[in-house]
Amino acid sequence: MQSCKLQSTFMISDRLFTIREEGNAVLILDQTLLPHQYATRHLNALADAAHAIRAMQVRGAPLIGVTAAYGVALALKEGAGNKALDNAVRTLAATRPTAVNLLWALARMEAALRPLPVARRRAAAWEEARAIAREDVAANRRIGEHGLALLQAAAKNNGPVRVMTHCNAGWLATAGWGTALAPVYAARAAGLPVHVWVSETRPRNQGLLTAWELRAAGVPHTVFADNAAGLLVQRGEVDLVIVGADRIAANGDVANKVGTYLKALAAHAHGVPFYVAAPLSTIDFACADGLRIPIEERPDDELRHVCGISHGGHPSSVAVLPAETPAANPAFDVTPASLVAGIVTERGVCAPGELHKLLQERK
Amino acid sequence: MQSCKLQSTFMISDRLFTIREEGNAVLILDQTLLPHQYATRHLNALADAAHAIRAMQVRGAPLIGVTAAYGVALALKEGAGNKALDNAVRTLAATRPTAVNLLWALARMEAALRPLPVARRRAAAWEEARAIAREDVAANRRIGEHGLALLQAAAKNNGPVRVMTHCNAGWLATAGWGTALAPVYAARAAGLPVHVWVSETRPRNQGLLTAWELRAAGVPHTVFADNAAGLLVQRGEVDLVIVGADRIAANGDVANKVGTYLKALAAHAHGVPFYVAAPLSTIDFACADGLRIPIEERPDDELRHVCGISHGGHPSSVAVLPAETPAANPAFDVTPASLVAGIVTERGVCAPGELHKLLQERK
Repeated sequence: MQSCKLQSTFMISDRLFTIREEGNAVLILDQTLLPHQYATRHLNALADAAHAIRAMQVRGAPLIGVTAAYGVALALKEGAGNKALDNAVRTLAATRPTAVNLLWALARMEAALRPLPVARRRAAAWEEARAIAREDVAANRRIGEHGLALLQAAAKNNGPVRVMTHCNAGWLATAGWGTALAPVYAARAAGLPVHVWVSETRPRNQGLLTAWELRAAGVPHTVFADNAAGLLVQRGEVDLVIVGADRIAANGDVANKVGTYLKALAAHAHGVPFYVAAPLSTIDFACADGLRIPIEERPDDELRHVCGISHGGHPSSVAVLPAETPAANPAFDVTPASLVAGIVTERGVCAPGELHKLLQERK
Repeated sequence: MQSCKLQSTFMISDRLFTIREEGNAVLILDQTLLPHQYATRHLNALADAAHAIRAMQVRGAPLIGVTAAYGVALALKEGAGNKALDNAVRTLAATRPTAVNLLWALARMEAALRPLPVARRRAAAWEEARAIAREDVAANRRIGEHGLALLQAAAKNNGPVRVMTHCNAGWLATAGWGTALAPVYAARAAGLPVHVWVSETRPRNQGLLTAWELRAAGVPHTVFADNAAGLLVQRGEVDLVIVGADRIAANGDVANKVGTYLKALAAHAHGVPFYVAAPLSTIDFACADGLRIPIEERPDDELRHVCGISHGGHPSSVAVLPAETPAANPAFDVTPASLVAGIVTERGVCAPGELHKLLQERK
């Protein structure tokens, strides 16, 4: 059964994928090395999956969820009793605190597996993980369609629609298509010209992942230092901002990569619409507001070292902060619902204050 | 006369200075190498001074002004006729467009030298440059005293006053004391505990200059990625924001290092006062508002390469952006007067809408 490979519907080539099954194992693209190096890693056991999430070899809320689901399947290879299941869920849940897709995927795996006899859990775990991945691809494709209408509405008579995004919420952050970039890819497919302003996204430079994706897809783009977001909006060079999310609270507050809030403030100050694109699995209806979302504090080493290519052409890094300089590295921030023009899910675009309607439809 | 060295009143040791006379030449601290390497450079001629400003070996609006003044003195070494004076002013004025202190210092040099017989201009040029440097130190010292009152007002009962700053507006940006950091140094001298949140300030990482200064002065501080500014303010970890300026328009709009505007928006959203500290020479009364301030576009190489220390312990750099990725690198942005709680000059603290009163006093 494991030999039935998941084929993303958004795969430019066999090299361009985030996660797929390979025999008894799971193959991931190691995103810590991009865009400077292309390498894949085999995940063979629970510990590999937990490490991949923690070390951000896989990243992006939807992809974290999919990887966690496969992590449960890997964990049950050696034995699928309650102890193994409990241990898998506990280990994976502790990898990263902010993206709720992680907890969502683990809850779904538990709900599917716990009632089953132990003998049937192993196969069912792979099936459920595969279903989560497939549904993510399908949800993101629909996000692209719904988001396309927003881009079409923002289109002026002359020139491309100018979209600003932050971090990476493209296909690299998901099982396929992406969230914030799905509408951009849909626009490309529909022949609507788009230009994307890509924030560098210090300290881990995920903007370079976005640039790498967009280049592969032939979408015009320009990278800028995060500091320049205000000026670009102020100058009227941005028609709309669209970002992904790691967790959306019931009131519409949005936790996303640190720096998102500053872009939302700038957009709001200049009447530029600020959209959040995320599948329903990113909405945490149990979390009343953004203040309750746990914000991950990452190791300050991420600020201290910058990775790139040496003069000799090899992957390398330099220390930018002296060892004695104290540094803080919070990984997310919270954008209040009042700054969000709309949340784009697979069900359509809704106001941040109307998320409860999605919950009713969901039931 | 050139042997009369300018001694800054803020000089922790003989190593810690930004600019001083040395014989027939001018000695500068090369800030492009800090904090990783300490090196000084001799400026012997006009071209050296122009290069030092353009390449940001010296930086910070007040220091750019002082260096330009000395650049005129260097230019007149070989001949002090009108042609030489015109050429010096034209060459230096073209080095960088945003900081008005450059144009202010050149206008002052011209006003002092043009009416003089050619034979007297050479000595007068050194005298005037020295006066500009001395007055900058004195103005910044007074900015520190006036700003100290703002820090005292922000002090809570427990713990240090928590100041956020952006870029470097310390003594490295001036002939002495600094602008935004002058109040911090004044607080330190007055025994008022202060903690400074230092933004990294991509793409050129001038925040590391600020951290280097603060460490040398024994002021507690923490570096953060520019993206985290919103979260820190949102969390209530900042009592006030204080930055320098490259040009302040007559209506109180402030051009400063790109990213300043985002910090001002965050401060405004959470009721945290946002102050700008600058000498009167940074105010451009001929410029009606911020929209008219020219914003420098720097080479995109500044985004493409990051300098630091290699694994082997040597100064080195890595390429972070693939050569084929387009990048934009505007160096400044404009913070509207409506977001500025006060402008701290050597004359005291005034509302951004009341700058014209300073003009009247100046006359």
